[in-house]
Amino acid sequence: MTAADLENVVAGLRQARLEWRERHRLREPRGRELPSAELLEAVVCGLRGVLFPLRLGPPDLRAEVEDFYIGHQLDTQLQTLRQQALLELRYVDPQADEAALAAQAQGLVAEFARALPGIRRLLDTDVLAAYQGDPAARSVDEVLLCYPGIEAMIHHRLAHQLYRLGVPLLARIVAERAHARTGIDIHPGARIGPGLFIDHGTGVVIGETAVIGERVRIYQAVTLGARSFPTDEQGQIRKGAPRHPVVEDDVVIYAGATILGRITLGRGSTIGGNVWLTRSVPPGSQVTQAQAV
Amino acid sequence: MTAADLENVVAGLRQARLEWRERHRLREPRGRELPSAELLEAVVCGLRGVLFPLRLGPPDLRAEVEDFYIGHQLDTQLQTLRQQALLELRYVDPQADEAALAAQAQGLVAEFARALPGIRRLLDTDVLAAYQGDPAARSVDEVLLCYPGIEAMIHHRLAHQLYRLGVPLLARIVAERAHARTGIDIHPGARIGPGLFIDHGTGVVIGETAVIGERVRIYQAVTLGARSFPTDEQGQIRKGAPRHPVVEDDVVIYAGATILGRITLGRGSTIGGNVWLTRSVPPGSQVTQAQAV
Amino acid sequence: MTAADLENVVAGLRQARLEWRERHRLREPRGRELPSAELLEAVVCGLRGVLFPLRLGPPDLRAEVEDFYIGHQLDTQLQTLRQQALLELRYVDPQADEAALAAQAQGLVAEFARALPGIRRLLDTDVLAAYQGDPAARSVDEVLLCYPGIEAMIHHRLAHQLYRLGVPLLARIVAERAHARTGIDIHPGARIGPGLFIDHGTGVVIGETAVIGERVRIYQAVTLGARSFPTDEQGQIRKGAPRHPVVEDDVVIYAGATILGRITLGRGSTIGGNVWLTRSVPPGSQVTQAQAV
Amino acid sequence: MTAADLENVVAGLRQARLEWRERHRLREPRGRELPSAELLEAVVCGLRGVLFPLRLGPPDLRAEVEDFYIGHQLDTQLQTLRQQALLELRYVDPQADEAALAAQAQGLVAEFARALPGIRRLLDTDVLAAYQGDPAARSVDEVLLCYPGIEAMIHHRLAHQLYRLGVPLLARIVAERAHARTGIDIHPGARIGPGLFIDHGTGVVIGETAVIGERVRIYQAVTLGARSFPTDEQGQIRKGAPRHPVVEDDVVIYAGATILGRITLGRGSTIGGNVWLTRSVPPGSQVTQAQAV
Amino acid sequence: MTAADLENVVAGLRQARLEWRERHRLREPRGRELPSAELLEAVVCGLRGVLFPLRLGPPDLRAEVEDFYIGHQLDTQLQTLRQQALLELRYVDPQADEAALAAQAQGLVAEFARALPGIRRLLDTDVLAAYQGDPAARSVDEVLLCYPGIEAMIHHRLAHQLYRLGVPLLARIVAERAHARTGIDIHPGARIGPGLFIDHGTGVVIGETAVIGERVRIYQAVTLGARSFPTDEQGQIRKGAPRHPVVEDDVVIYAGATILGRITLGRGSTIGGNVWLTRSVPPGSQVTQAQAV
Amino acid sequence: MTAADLENVVAGLRQARLEWRERHRLREPRGRELPSAELLEAVVCGLRGVLFPLRLGPPDLRAEVEDFYIGHQLDTQLQTLRQQALLELRYVDPQADEAALAAQAQGLVAEFARALPGIRRLLDTDVLAAYQGDPAARSVDEVLLCYPGIEAMIHHRLAHQLYRLGVPLLARIVAERAHARTGIDIHPGARIGPGLFIDHGTGVVIGETAVIGERVRIYQAVTLGARSFPTDEQGQIRKGAPRHPVVEDDVVIYAGATILGRITLGRGSTIGGNVWLTRSVPPGSQVTQAQAV
Repeated sequence: MTAADLENVVAGLRQARLEWRERHRLREPRGRELPSAELLEAVVCGLRGVLFPLRLGPPDLRAEVEDFYIGHQLDTQLQTLRQQALLELRYVDPQADEAALAAQAQGLVAEFARALPGIRRLLDTDVLAAYQGDPAARSVDEVLLCYPGIEAMIHHRLAHQLYRLGVPLLARIVAERAHARTGIDIHPGARIGPGLFIDHGTGVVIGETAVIGERVRIYQAVTLGARSFPTDEQGQIRKGAPRHPVVEDDVVIYAGATILGRITLGRGSTIGGNVWLTRSVPPGSQVTQAQAV
Repeated sequence: MTAADLENVVAGLRQARLEWRERHRLREPRGRELPSAELLEAVVCGLRGVLFPLRLGPPDLRAEVEDFYIGHQLDTQLQTLRQQALLELRYVDPQADEAALAAQAQGLVAEFARALPGIRRLLDTDVLAAYQGDPAARSVDEVLLCYPGIEAMIHHRLAHQLYRLGVPLLARIVAERAHARTGIDIHPGARIGPGLFIDHGTGVVIGETAVIGERVRIYQAVTLGARSFPTDEQGQIRKGAPRHPVVEDDVVIYAGATILGRITLGRGSTIGGNVWLTRSVPPGSQVTQAQAV
Repeated sequence: MTAADLENVVAGLRQARLEWRERHRLREPRGRELPSAELLEAVVCGLRGVLFPLRLGPPDLRAEVEDFYIGHQLDTQLQTLRQQALLELRYVDPQADEAALAAQAQGLVAEFARALPGIRRLLDTDVLAAYQGDPAARSVDEVLLCYPGIEAMIHHRLAHQLYRLGVPLLARIVAERAHARTGIDIHPGARIGPGLFIDHGTGVVIGETAVIGERVRIYQAVTLGARSFPTDEQGQIRKGAPRHPVVEDDVVIYAGATILGRITLGRGSTIGGNVWLTRSVPPGSQVTQAQAV
Repeated sequence: MTAADLENVVAGLRQARLEWRERHRLREPRGRELPSAELLEAVVCGLRGVLFPLRLGPPDLRAEVEDFYIGHQLDTQLQTLRQQALLELRYVDPQADEAALAAQAQGLVAEFARALPGIRRLLDTDVLAAYQGDPAARSVDEVLLCYPGIEAMIHHRLAHQLYRLGVPLLARIVAERAHARTGIDIHPGARIGPGLFIDHGTGVVIGETAVIGERVRIYQAVTLGARSFPTDEQGQIRKGAPRHPVVEDDVVIYAGATILGRITLGRGSTIGGNVWLTRSVPPGSQVTQAQAV
Repeated sequence: MTAADLENVVAGLRQARLEWRERHRLREPRGRELPSAELLEAVVCGLRGVLFPLRLGPPDLRAEVEDFYIGHQLDTQLQTLRQQALLELRYVDPQADEAALAAQAQGLVAEFARALPGIRRLLDTDVLAAYQGDPAARSVDEVLLCYPGIEAMIHHRLAHQLYRLGVPLLARIVAERAHARTGIDIHPGARIGPGLFIDHGTGVVIGETAVIGERVRIYQAVTLGARSFPTDEQGQIRKGAPRHPVVEDDVVIYAGATILGRITLGRGSTIGGNVWLTRSVPPGSQVTQAQAV
Repeated sequence: MTAADLENVVAGLRQARLEWRERHRLREPRGRELPSAELLEAVVCGLRGVLFPLRLGPPDLRAEVEDFYIGHQLDTQLQTLRQQALLELRYVDPQADEAALAAQAQGLVAEFARALPGIRRLLDTDVLAAYQGDPAARSVDEVLLCYPGIEAMIHHRLAHQLYRLGVPLLARIVAERAHARTGIDIHPGARIGPGLFIDHGTGVVIGETAVIGERVRIYQAVTLGARSFPTDEQGQIRKGAPRHPVVEDDVVIYAGATILGRITLGRGSTIGGNVWLTRSVPPGSQVTQAQAV
């Protein structure tokens, strides 16, 4: 292409950007002002090593000195996280006092750090649940190293903490990394108890207001979705209103089941494969699809 | 292994290659003569920055000077694309005149470049559709950064242009990158109008001759597939014959629905989750599956 | 965070690790003693080039000298594989004699190497099946470069060999890489005949004891799963007992079908989309779901 | 080593740091507060491409579109440079008003940018001088690509500008990169006219207050050094006082010559190899060492 | 900087480039048309491994299979070299027939390859000479791994071959890499017999037409230079005319000696440190500087 | 080249290797059995950060948590060092008991670690000496960041420790890295007291048995070399015999001076530039060269 042809394309792209900004009355950004998916992925990768140093940490780590590694790695990742959190806070409220935003970012990252031991304990229950629930699993270490359900839960339990602490965009970015790598799409708002086992996992969708109890088992392509969006009297969608299922303790949901709306699956129920369910079921229910043919 | 053992394996592999080439009467290739998935991925990554410089471009880009970046980045990526296109054209017609192939590659890349502003405008409609269609979305920027449906559409709208311009292998490679990263499998031949919103997306399949209107919404695991392959009088499959659905404007298709064959979903219809549908439905239809249990 | 805050988090994490080890009576590991997913991914990547040097090997490889490349690359990858195998063998039996373990690792890798020409021939049948089965495929090379089903089968046929040779953890790690990249989840234990074509593939699950014949075709989201876990007289799960389907030659299974348990799909049968099937069907069966609406 | 051994070493190192800080009454730094040699090297590397885009820029740059590249590359490098300059300014004056420092950094980088075309013209004279002065040189491009004297001058002319603008630490870091790569050690304070040709160059040392005229030629291991340090009445070293030679136009200095003190080598003089010279010589002098043996 | 400021600098740089091209009547280059120092460095690095596979090759190479490595590595590097040679040939003669240039590049690279076993043998003599000449050397392997004199000779013997085959720019680029890394500056034209030992090496300069016999020893900062440039009747410098010393077999030259002009150092002579010498000396001479003080 | 041509070159190289091994009665190595310069460079780079964490450590390190970093980094580098030391010990004594070698490597690395605080203190004196001795130095941090003399001393003080602990090959490799980057060639055997300042440095050579006192200053191109090699009664070179100068406290040696043999420069002496000296001088001497011309 000649320089003139290239100029034309550049001008065309500029025009398209201007139209977009004008139509949506967006102020012109001065630069990249948003968190970075690459940096957040690095943070999660570093925190995996902090949580499970001898399994997911650096290959040359020795057990005797793992606390040195953890302390340094943790501080490094938390600094990056603080900067990313600051970007989100400032993006949401560009007029806010910069010092206040910095303090807020500082505080939420400190709280995030304090939650890490609890997150490790929760993830231990998830690993154990997978080990106990899968006849093919040979060891807890195999589960930790290989199972996409565990990878998804590591991301989710970190993302959920970020969501709770007021940086939902960071949380969403982390959740989408897990989605891309495992095919398991858990909204960071979902509240999930200990011992969740997601087997195979591809195509699982768990919505923002879903609540999952203890020792639940979920197979591939299960949806815990919304049926419709709750609206207020003016017909406006009410953001954040409960609209996804509540799954009580010890429920098993087989592959391809679709559970929609703010219904409750009672404790110990079993939902069969491919079942389409939009109403609550009492504890101990066995829901199955009529068999084909 | 000893050197002799290794030699044996090398000889065994050589024999296997020879058999394959002889059986299929393939001439011996002289080297790698095919486009490179890695290079094409880099091109798409670069073009993402060209299309959305302050959101998907380099982190240190300043708004004031974004045209410099765009011009340079665009030229770099188009050169790579031209070389890759030349590889495909030569592969398809190894006897063709080299100068003619080069001119053809040059021409199609220039046309591709001219289409970019229009592609940016189409992608803006997709972003807007996702923002408006998802109660969890907080901003258009969050959509652009996080949503796998947007990532799939960026790839598709570029891949579709390559498909139209006569380099279907490049197009397919680009499409499969999106498939690998999002679980959304859109054949580059599919014709898709503005404002498509694919939510969650894992398991979506959209076939080569599918036609999708404006403002359509599609959820995870939806298939727009072929029912059977049209054949001519001799029973030969007729390549390229229309065999996938036509989806008119403002249709919503819920998760897991399977729509097969050259049928038409009339404007404004809603197709329920897990529905299996192989016949056309008129505008405004509400198609649902009988509920299980 | 102050150093004291950080110390607290480090101490909390240490406490969590200790509890886990005590509760599960695990000895303290001395360091990373497990195979590395990154290294195994590099091995598979290198072996892809060994199997298909001019298509998946280095871009500058010339046909005349490909055996040099293959010999060197193969030796390099086999050494890594041997080290990784040794890690698994030692992990399984930490008390074993080190020299015996080394010999075992050496022997199994040599056998793995000898199997590679056969694996190449099997993969050729898979490529051919995809080319013949997909009207959109323009060449065998396009299939090899682009199709996720082929990528999954390259991983599976290597992983299955590792599984057979007694390193199931390595096999599982390899299989999960394919799962992450293609959404196709094939347990390395599954026995698969020549000419399998998996189209689109996202959401396919094939279980450990599944047996698949020749020239089978499988579409996206098909499950070949277990119905329940066989137990012995004491009610203990019998590991490795046959619990997944047997699919005979020339069977076609359309998208979303769920086939559960140790049943047999007779030669030449066709299983329709979304069908839920838990009993055997004779050769030549046509199983379809009652259409919705 | 046991964890205790390691702790001891860590404690020993901490003690050593504390002693150093106490002895020199240094405040405790909070972190890395100094410019980065790596980043500055990247800036110089980027600016080389800006100055000579088709010779030292990216390999795929096309002449037609080089201004796009230059504009983007220049802006990127200037931003990094501004941040590095800010680090030096703040380091020198930790109490200064942050906004004032930022404005100062901004201003000096803008002035630096405006000097670049002039620097390019000066470097052109250096390239030409090397081409004309070396019978082995086959083209000006060979000189630009290969000659260490040119590499040293690119660094020096940039470093001298930084020195003049008030960031001598940045300047020194840049100068030392050239020293490390070429063995030519030019203090960034030295004032050097157009057309300097340094041949071979290893071991050349040019001091801070040296002044070099036009079309000067210098061979390897030449020193333009200080004889003694000027002191004031109190015997304190007077920093910055002229103490290195003045070399007038068209002087040639052969290998190994040592020229010390604020003397003047008159226009057109020739200084022989290994000569030791501490007094001025008039224009047109021929200074040689008595031959050995 | 504002966009306008940046535009001004870009325009200033463009103007400087135009002036340079106009003044020197250079045609506008279309892009980077010159060999790449980075690629040539990679070639030399690869060839080091080819020449000394178990010492300078890849860390995981096994002796049993080194020929596989050598064959593949060699072919890879020779291809790059051929492309680089083509760039130089075309640069020198832009009007030449492209096919003829390609054949010429092909031919010279083939001849280069055939010279490699001889180069290996010569380098073996250099290694041996260093081992025997340095009382601190503990093994030939230490010499090969550590000694800058050996690194310089590996580069020189390859560069000299390129020089002889008609690609002096490639040769010069290779030589300057050694210069940058070792401080030893050997012009690729210099003819050097077996068993040269350069100790320490920093500051050594050996000119284009120097001739060095067998078993010569040279210490740091030795110059084998030209005294003046031979001219023809018109006073034009005669390129390539012999102007550097001839050093016969078994000569030792101590540190800092400067030997200038087409003189001959007779067999077995010893030249003392810092000696300045511009006339021939007979075999067996002992030349020393009068001692200072 | 054809495959046959390539085979010929490969065979020629094999023949050259065989001849070398036969001529020198070397056993065939089984693979790379020698330490790696790349790994040792990484160790030194890591140890620089351990010694000066906030100046030469990672850019994001915070002062509050530097001990975490030091502990982890130190352990990582010491492990690599231990492996490299084991390679050297085994190379020197291939028949030795493997467990004994491992214990020896372990022990020497532990002793090396214990020496690090002392090395830091010595380096502090070097930094201070450079700061005080150079009127151009603006701060101790500038010295630490920029001065090649400091870079050389960091390498030397680590290398000397390795030399003392019995791994001279590792020591030499480390020393040559400094030589390559600074042009300063200090044999790791040299014993150097606190407060050495090497200014400019290019071309400095300090031999194996040199002894340097406190607060010595040395300029570029100074040689502390051997005059001849001491031999025993049989005329065999006596390895390790003292043959380099002893430089007492507070000596200054100006650029280009050559000091040869086991002589002593008395305390407080000054040796002028380019002086050639082969006899001892008493304390307080002023040695200068007769001025030229």
